[in-house]
Parts: sequence; structure tokens; C-alpha cells
Amino acid sequence: MNVIVDLCLVPIGVGVSLSRYVAACEKVLAETDLNYSLHANGTNIEGDWDAVFAAIKQCHETVHGIGAPRIFTTIKCGTRTDKSQQMADKVQSVKEKL
Amino acid sequence: MNVIVDLCLVPIGVGVSLSRYVAACEKVLAETDLNYSLHANGTNIEGDWDAVFAAIKQCHETVHGIGAPRIFTTIKCGTRTDKSQQMADKVQSVKEKL
Amino acid sequence: MNVIVDLCLVPIGVGVSLSRYVAACEKVLAETDLNYSLHANGTNIEGDWDAVFAAIKQCHETVHGIGAPRIFTTIKCGTRTDKSQQMADKVQSVKEKL
Amino acid sequence: MNVIVDLCLVPIGVGVSLSRYVAACEKVLAETDLNYSLHANGTNIEGDWDAVFAAIKQCHETVHGIGAPRIFTTIKCGTRTDKSQQMADKVQSVKEKL
Repeated sequence: MNVIVDLCLVPIGVGVSLSRYVAACEKVLAETDLNYSLHANGTNIEGDWDAVFAAIKQCHETVHGIGAPRIFTTIKCGTRTDKSQQMADKVQSVKEKL
Repeated sequence: MNVIVDLCLVPIGVGVSLSRYVAACEKVLAETDLNYSLHANGTNIEGDWDAVFAAIKQCHETVHGIGAPRIFTTIKCGTRTDKSQQMADKVQSVKEKL
Repeated sequence: MNVIVDLCLVPIGVGVSLSRYVAACEKVLAETDLNYSLHANGTNIEGDWDAVFAAIKQCHETVHGIGAPRIFTTIKCGTRTDKSQQMADKVQSVKEKL
Repeated sequence: MNVIVDLCLVPIGVGVSLSRYVAACEKVLAETDLNYSLHANGTNIEGDWDAVFAAIKQCHETVHGIGAPRIFTTIKCGTRTDKSQQMADKVQSVKEKL
């Protein structure tokens, strides 16, 4: 089962600047074969369900490991069985209707 | 790693009434050992990370299996290493400050 | 336009314990005529769109006012034109299918 | 109060293809002075709180107006008082740590 995810991980208890922790997650994703793309409010990721959620778990473990005592994460997650769709298709499909 | 999750699964392409699909997810959760609680905008679940996310994956598979061609899910997900905390503790902790 | 919302406000840069800030939001809601209900991962609120979002804005202002330099909030938000529905109806509707 | 938002609006009861409705929201945003950017799982928007949430309300009204009987929307929403920050700054700040 393929999934397209928007991951937004917020470390808590490490002060107000969070970019170091988001960068650590980007490095976790860079070690995978997943397709991903950072944006202003999260990171879009696509791939096999198990691989995507294994990466998300590793992000939590990594961010705890570099000092965050608490993490709050928001995940938006889409699956479909009617057709195969990639992240770029979703944006393209909207742009064609503009 | 323990996790407290808020799961909100929205089947797409099955019309306007979604409760049958949410009920199917509740039945998936009832088959697990996880602690969970339905509310007006989702279901709170707590337990081991792997068990919780295995249940969420099974919800997606089940809802596709009973006819939804597309699913959009929102997951809020909290982990912490500084202390053990359960769902009831979170509500209690706020109520003590009221 | 009526709306049913799930509000989850996370103050950032105030340490690891957040319940004091969530309690401040509950007090904001208590001053309104809105129907609301705290749960383990947020607060469900229902009412007129403008009144609900005015309250959410006031929560942000209040939490900044008591010391949080940064806030990350997740809002799930449902509207419908086919029928009038309240929070309790949503839970009841699922429970009837169990 | 400035806000950076991620808006993801899901019309329910209109079948499986949603891009027409997302395009209608993009057109609403195009009529405003807000800075916004479509991505694979939503649209990032930045601007004054009231202007941003007025646009979001207008998206709901517009999508109901073109036929969706039910809408489920997820909003991630960030405010800060410690410094002024724009969407591009957030991405840049992470990239500098990679």
C-alpha cells in the first residue's frame, strides 16, 4: 500500500528554534529511498506504507536522541486503491483546473 | 516507545455519511490490546508505537476493503522521554489548572 | 455557517509542561457561549464559524500574553450543508454501527 | 498578529476526484493579497490572522457553493511574538542546518 504523507514534527522543551531538529529529520529521510520534499509547514513524503512509517518512527527516535524530551507530530496521510498517484500528480491535477 | 495518538480517518468517494467506516475502525481497535477512546473529531489511542501504527495501517486496509477507494487521515502523535504519561493524565493535568 | 472543530494548541519555548497554557485556553472558551469538550489530544468546539474562530484567535493572544513566544496549533474543522449535526450526534452515529 | 498556515480542505460527498475543489480555493486565495503556495498535501498561506482566516472561511463557502455538501479541513497554524518570520525563512533555516 502506497501512501502520501505530510509530516510535521515539533520538538517540545528545547526552546523556540526548531530548525536543527527538522534538519535531523531531513537527514533521516535522506538515508532512505523515499521521495520527500520540505515545505514551509512540513515535509511531504511518498512511498510504501511500512517504509514511510518506519522513517517517521526513526525521526522521533532521532529527535529524542539529540535532546528533545517531548515531541508533538502531525501527520496527514493519503492512500487510494482506485489509481496510482504521486505527489507531483496531485499538484499538477489542481493546476490544470486553474 | 509509547505514543498517544489522535486518529481521524476520512473515507473519500463513498458519499457523505462516514460513520459506518469509523465504526469499522473502532472494531479494528477493539481487537487490539490498545487503550482507545472515540470523541467527536477522532479517536484517541495510546500504546506502544509499533502496535498503534500497525492498528492504523489495519484501519486503512479495512476501510479500503469495505469499499472506500480513497482515504485521507490526520494523525496527531505525541511521544516523551521525560516521563510516562497516559491519556487520562493529560486531561487531569489541565483540569488541575482550571 | 456552523462548524465542529478540534483545536490543539502547542506553546513552544516554554519548557515541557504545557497544561497551564491549555488551561488558559479552556478559560477563554468558558467565557464564550460555545459548546466545548476537552479530550486527551485537544478540545472539541462547536458553534458559529465566526464565534469559533474568534475564540481560537483569542486563545493564541492569551497564550502569547502569558509568556509563550511561539505557538503551533492544529485545527480540524468540519462544515456541512446537507444537515445540522452536533458533536454528540457524530459519536452517537458511530456507536449505532458498532 | 501574523500567521503561517497550512490549509488542507477535503470536500466529502463529491466522489473521489477533489482537484476541482482545491482549484476553487486557489482562486479564492488569488483574489486576496496573501502570499500562498500549493504543495502536494495542502496550501501554505501567510499574512495577517484575520485576512488568512477570512480567506479560509471563503474557501469553505465557495466549495459548498459549487456542490460539496460536507467539508473536512485540516489547518496547521503558527504564530510567534519573538521575531518576524516568513514561509521562505522557515525552509531556509532548516536547509542551513543540513
